[in-house]
Amino acid sequence: MLVCMLQQLHPGGPGSRSLDSLFAPRSVAIVGASRDPGKWGGLLARGALKGRHRRAVGLVNRNGGEILGSPSYRSLGELPDAPELVVACVPATFLEQTVDDALAAGARAIVGISAGLGEAEERALGEGVREAGAVLLGPNCLGVFDRDEELDLAPWVDFPPGEIGLIAQSGNLSLELALLAERQGLGFSRFASLGNQADLEAAELIESFARHDATRLIALYVEDFRDGRAFARAAAAAGKPVVLLSGGGSEAGMRAARSHTRALVTDLTVVDAVCRAAGIVRVLTPRELIDAAKALLHGRPPRGRRLVVLGDGGGHGVVAADVATRHGLKLPLLTPRLVAELAAVLPETATTQNPVDFAGGAEQDIRTFERVVRLLLDSGEVDALLVTGYFGGYGTAAEREVAIALASAAERSGVPLVVHSLHPESEAARALISSGALVYLEIEPAVRALAALAERAEREPRGIPAAMTGDALSQAEEGYFASRRLVSEAGVPMVDAQAVATAEEAHAAADELGYPVALKALASEHKSDAGGVVLGIVDAAGLDAAYRGVPAGACSVERMAPLGEGIELIVGVRRDPRFGPMLLVGLGGVYAEVFRDVAVALAPVEAAEAEQLVRSLRCAPLLEGARGKPVLDIAAAARAASALSHLAVRAPWLAELEVNPLLVTADGALGLDARLVLGTREERP
Amino acid sequence: MLVCMLQQLHPGGPGSRSLDSLFAPRSVAIVGASRDPGKWGGLLARGALKGRHRRAVGLVNRNGGEILGSPSYRSLGELPDAPELVVACVPATFLEQTVDDALAAGARAIVGISAGLGEAEERALGEGVREAGAVLLGPNCLGVFDRDEELDLAPWVDFPPGEIGLIAQSGNLSLELALLAERQGLGFSRFASLGNQADLEAAELIESFARHDATRLIALYVEDFRDGRAFARAAAAAGKPVVLLSGGGSEAGMRAARSHTRALVTDLTVVDAVCRAAGIVRVLTPRELIDAAKALLHGRPPRGRRLVVLGDGGGHGVVAADVATRHGLKLPLLTPRLVAELAAVLPETATTQNPVDFAGGAEQDIRTFERVVRLLLDSGEVDALLVTGYFGGYGTAAEREVAIALASAAERSGVPLVVHSLHPESEAARALISSGALVYLEIEPAVRALAALAERAEREPRGIPAAMTGDALSQAEEGYFASRRLVSEAGVPMVDAQAVATAEEAHAAADELGYPVALKALASEHKSDAGGVVLGIVDAAGLDAAYRGVPAGACSVERMAPLGEGIELIVGVRRDPRFGPMLLVGLGGVYAEVFRDVAVALAPVEAAEAEQLVRSLRCAPLLEGARGKPVLDIAAAARAASALSHLAVRAPWLAELEVNPLLVTADGALGLDARLVLGTREERP
Repeated sequence: MLVCMLQQLHPGGPGSRSLDSLFAPRSVAIVGASRDPGKWGGLLARGALKGRHRRAVGLVNRNGGEILGSPSYRSLGELPDAPELVVACVPATFLEQTVDDALAAGARAIVGISAGLGEAEERALGEGVREAGAVLLGPNCLGVFDRDEELDLAPWVDFPPGEIGLIAQSGNLSLELALLAERQGLGFSRFASLGNQADLEAAELIESFARHDATRLIALYVEDFRDGRAFARAAAAAGKPVVLLSGGGSEAGMRAARSHTRALVTDLTVVDAVCRAAGIVRVLTPRELIDAAKALLHGRPPRGRRLVVLGDGGGHGVVAADVATRHGLKLPLLTPRLVAELAAVLPETATTQNPVDFAGGAEQDIRTFERVVRLLLDSGEVDALLVTGYFGGYGTAAEREVAIALASAAERSGVPLVVHSLHPESEAARALISSGALVYLEIEPAVRALAALAERAEREPRGIPAAMTGDALSQAEEGYFASRRLVSEAGVPMVDAQAVATAEEAHAAADELGYPVALKALASEHKSDAGGVVLGIVDAAGLDAAYRGVPAGACSVERMAPLGEGIELIVGVRRDPRFGPMLLVGLGGVYAEVFRDVAVALAPVEAAEAEQLVRSLRCAPLLEGARGKPVLDIAAAARAASALSHLAVRAPWLAELEVNPLLVTADGALGLDARLVLGTREERP
Repeated sequence: MLVCMLQQLHPGGPGSRSLDSLFAPRSVAIVGASRDPGKWGGLLARGALKGRHRRAVGLVNRNGGEILGSPSYRSLGELPDAPELVVACVPATFLEQTVDDALAAGARAIVGISAGLGEAEERALGEGVREAGAVLLGPNCLGVFDRDEELDLAPWVDFPPGEIGLIAQSGNLSLELALLAERQGLGFSRFASLGNQADLEAAELIESFARHDATRLIALYVEDFRDGRAFARAAAAAGKPVVLLSGGGSEAGMRAARSHTRALVTDLTVVDAVCRAAGIVRVLTPRELIDAAKALLHGRPPRGRRLVVLGDGGGHGVVAADVATRHGLKLPLLTPRLVAELAAVLPETATTQNPVDFAGGAEQDIRTFERVVRLLLDSGEVDALLVTGYFGGYGTAAEREVAIALASAAERSGVPLVVHSLHPESEAARALISSGALVYLEIEPAVRALAALAERAEREPRGIPAAMTGDALSQAEEGYFASRRLVSEAGVPMVDAQAVATAEEAHAAADELGYPVALKALASEHKSDAGGVVLGIVDAAGLDAAYRGVPAGACSVERMAPLGEGIELIVGVRRDPRFGPMLLVGLGGVYAEVFRDVAVALAPVEAAEAEQLVRSLRCAPLLEGARGKPVLDIAAAARAASALSHLAVRAPWLAELEVNPLLVTADGALGLDARLVLGTREERP
């Protein structure tokens, strides 16, 4: 029983449930089926009946009668066949009864279309279904679809058939995704509308889609991540590309998402960190999702970000280079040897650097494309190729042959080939596509395709650590000295400090620590904002003056750190209600808030990864000895960050713990201040 | 004669030339006309003949004979009608002769298609044509097109008719723009291919397009801005929207543009500053250009950036809010009063904040859209409206009526209405469009439309100052103390300093200035990188130690500035070879290079505008007294920046002048270092 409960709480575990009853039921019943084709119950009935050659379809309507030529029944109990899947399309007030009836009738899966139940009632509903050994999708969801099973219980969306498995928390966005996918020649293998996740959460659906062979890519729109660690684990283990459309990147977006599904929207930097760890490609809009899906389904992963742009026309090269750079791709300078080889096959007026501009070379001889591409592929200097501009417009038979040659050469070299063509319907473009290249009319999706492929290739999912490991530490107290103690014991060196309550104690402390010292009043939370911190006190008279100036109450006298010799970072851990403990490193001091130069990762983080995080900061050159500055001890900063992150996974009572600043010098890293915030309620996970 | 020459040098002047002979010639001749329809000379002949009911068309071919049913002539001299416009489509070696022949035959305008002439020869060609009182477009250009004149001398591009005037320096990009415009229902009134600008530059073409009534919007792709001030002046004075597709934002893009047309590509931050000053909307890709053109031709300018997003579905609101925020639009919180009014017309489950989510409200009653939009428009809290998601999909007659009501209400309020609809071909969407709303299938172009409208509305073109004003200053010398003197005399206070050559002089200087002092070795250019600067020397012993440590040679002893009490900015002027003197302000000190927090403007800049520049920096909150810090003297920093900018326009010999750092404290701004670089050759302008 305990194992079973654990499995339910951690659907990422090995014993996760089969969702066959949801996606491949032998029989289905629609409760709330209607004769009115404009009503949801009418649409659902029609959708269900489309699969009646595959399974028994029972329609339930309080008034009975015929619906679309099929008999309907007044209750689930009256159905001739026990329904394996029941779809509840009833007013919220009847939902609980319908679920009870469904379980009584032997249902193994229930789809709750109905909206409007309270949060507590929904939770109880989910627990009831789980306890009965069944699964519940929704409520407040828009149904399910399975292409191969001919199961269409989300008939308001006209899903073109294909290989994308979609899990979404918005009906209208699902509509848009279906529409945009069709325009790009893509389609769907499966769809599940998440709804309010009273039982089934995204994680468990991802696991199911991962096992589903007809699904080659999992697309997600999620506002409420619930058990975020389980979500991340499921995505990391999926073994197929996962693309996440995630809203809430702006304040207004968060506001909207929060109100939309009562979701606790998670800060997007946290979601980004999760995506990096789990190998998820993250996008901002439906169009970006479809573009990424097309690239990941039909493109090859590049070995790196080195892109060469080539084409017969200079302006296109300029634009492509700019857009590619904006999307994080690199256009390396080609080696002199390769440049010489290119010059040998190109006209004198051509540009033989990256971007390569044939300057009319292909107009004279279309084979120029083939020669240039072969030289580039053979050079080993290229991870991806982007042909831009006029190819496809020459309109000759030779162009078609060249197209096939380009695509085959790229395939043999394992290098992705993306073509931006003004003539995507041309013979040559069709030949490119059928030979494995990606072809686009516009430069933006062409570059986005390459960026998505590069992102996916780089994000080898690492194991997602558990949110809780090892023995739980006993709960620390809040307050400055308790925070310092906690941090020190975790292994982060803190500047020497003594608590003082009077001027006399302050003098004694300063004498013991040695001048210069700093004085901190502990009364206010943001010490430095309230004039509660005095730095660089050089003698007793200075200390007296400082003591009179700071707010009354307990103070700390501290050895003055050599601020001028280092860079101030901020290192902290924060328990995200969905994804659990997160590590944050960033530039500290006065510049922290204006530049928001931070990096975030799922805790715990080992020292090597923490070092990568530090080096990913925009301010990293200042630590690495830019412009004659000393090389600072990044390893010490990374050790401190790693230590805090390991502390966090053993301290479930911790909401926030921050060392700010952590002074990084050539000789190490020293915490100059620490702040702990306890969790105010039992958080999950 | 002098006036005439000045007009030629400054095409922005009142006497600029008429280009009627280029765009509306009474007769045209094609030199190099060909029978071969695959050759350029064949295409051109066909293009020219399309207009033969409007003007005499003379075809010139060395071998004579009939071309497309018209006689051809062996030379321009043999033509029966004197050609007002001559198109030269001949090998480069024959171009000079052809131009001479054209002028001799009385041509008032020449289009040079031919490529491959040297830079000096091209310049001479341009001068010759100008002196003869004619105009030359190109060479290395792709011709001209004028819709109303039925002049098609760029027949390789199939320009759909419309209201965009296009001036472009890339043939393939022009092709792409024509294609994308047609897909958006847009077209072209005029086209001029810039080529190598031996005579006609973009500025003069802009002036001509500005006077051309059939052109309602001027679109530009320019790599080489030539006389950039004239360009800016022409754009600012155009009196119609100007959209610039400008490449070279990335290192690779600059590389490409430079090689493409031998263009001296200008740093994109400079181009951005020019666009702000001249009221130009800048875009990165052909698609962005067409989207901006559609918005500017068919949309209304908003009064500000306050956007309200509304729709019947929450997910779309989340995505729209994120994309809008990314494009610099603001989604304000609505006032409690407006929220209450919205609540009165929406279901209980709706979101009455921005983004407004009807939560099915419109499904119950489509008039919900009308009620909500009216409330928003009446509130005065909205500068622009974005309807997102399902509108257009209800498919009822009432929906069409509501569409018309929405568009009319928006028009009456002068508020732009943009609709993102999954059904842009629906009756309702068509009604919206014909009533003045902008409708898009995808959210990205919908938001880009609003952003372009907002950008255009904000950028009231200011007068573009001349690159040279007042009496020229006599040339200063390079070197630290000469630079300091120049800066001081311009009105920027500099920290007290004394030049010293020996340790004794250094001690004397320090005694006079008073400790603490700083010591700078003047040998190396980047003083602080080479260990050539010692700060905070508190006594004579420290000075001795410092003096022994710095590189030998001349030094400066300076009063130590209160670094801890202020923020270090960098303020400088730079003479851009195209756009002339530019003012730059930015964050200085060690963070300058990692965060590149800079703002740029065309010099000269008055103090008020300089203050806006400083306040536009990301680090501005640190100057404005964020988090309990003192409010610093931004006005003093702005005065210093303005002073440098005025110096620059009187010092044509100046390449760069930089005060770095400029220490801004609560009491003023103080230059701590200065560096002057003289121009190495006569720059233009």
